[in-house]
Amino acid sequence: MFTDEYFMKMALQEAEKALEQDEVPIGCVIVANNRVIAKSHNLTETLNDVTAHAEMQAITSAANFLGGKYLLNCTLYVTLEPCVMCSGALAWSQISKVVIGARDEQRGFINKGLSLHPKTEVVTGIMENECSEIVKVFFRNKR
Amino acid sequence: MFTDEYFMKMALQEAEKALEQDEVPIGCVIVANNRVIAKSHNLTETLNDVTAHAEMQAITSAANFLGGKYLLNCTLYVTLEPCVMCSGALAWSQISKVVIGARDEQRGFINKGLSLHPKTEVVTGIMENECSEIVKVFFRNKR
Repeated sequence: MFTDEYFMKMALQEAEKALEQDEVPIGCVIVANNRVIAKSHNLTETLNDVTAHAEMQAITSAANFLGGKYLLNCTLYVTLEPCVMCSGALAWSQISKVVIGARDEQRGFINKGLSLHPKTEVVTGIMENECSEIVKVFFRNKR
Repeated sequence: MFTDEYFMKMALQEAEKALEQDEVPIGCVIVANNRVIAKSHNLTETLNDVTAHAEMQAITSAANFLGGKYLLNCTLYVTLEPCVMCSGALAWSQISKVVIGARDEQRGFINKGLSLHPKTEVVTGIMENECSEIVKVFFRNKR
C-alpha cells in the first residue's frame, strides 16, 4: 500500500493546491515511518518570497515536527526535481531518501553536477508524466 | 562613508551576535540606496532548521520590506561565501550585488562551479581576515 506512487500522489495533490492559487504547481510531502510529517506546495508568489519553494517549507516543517534539524529516516516526495537552492537545503538536512516525479533538465540540481548528502538515496521518474504535465499546462496557459 | 567595509562591519556585528548564541558565526546585511533593509545571522541551532542561514533570512526579510520578491538594486554583504542553498536563493532573487568577506573553499558555491544571476556582480575579500578569523576561532573552541 505505502508505495512511492502512493506518496507521490499526495505530493501531486499539493501541486494542485498551488495551481489553484496561480502558483507554479510543485508539491511535496515528507514521510517518516509511512506517516506524512510535512506537506507543502510552492508559495513564492503568495508570500512574495523566492525561498518559499515547496521543499524549503517542508524541510522546516518536518524539522519542527521532529524537534531536530536532521531528517534521518525521512523520505521527501517532490513532483519536480529540486533546484540548486532546495538541493542545498536537502543536503544540509541529511535526509535519507528523495523521490522525484519529473526531471527539470534546465533548473534541476542534477544537470548542475550537484549531489545531495552521500547518505541520501535519490529515485527519479515516479509518476513522471502527471508531474511534468501539470507544470507544462501551467506555463502553456501563462503564455 | 558608505564603503563596502562600512557595511561588512555591520555584517560582522551580526556574526558576533551568532557567536554569542553559540551559532556558527556568519552574519549578513542587505542594503538598498545605502540603507540597511535587512540584517540577520545564522540561527540553525536555535531554530533547529538547516535552512536558517543568515542569507536565507535576510532575503525573506528584504523582500518583505520591499513588498516584492526580486532584490533589484540591492547589495548583500555576507561574512562568509554563501553555500549551495544560499547561492540558489540569491540567484532566484536577482540581487544586484553580493559582497563576500571570506571565501569558503569547501562549502561555498564558487568551487562547486555555480554562479548567481547573470545580472549579479560578485565581490570577494572585503575584511577577509576578520570574517575568516571569527569562524576559525569558533571551530577551534568546539574541538
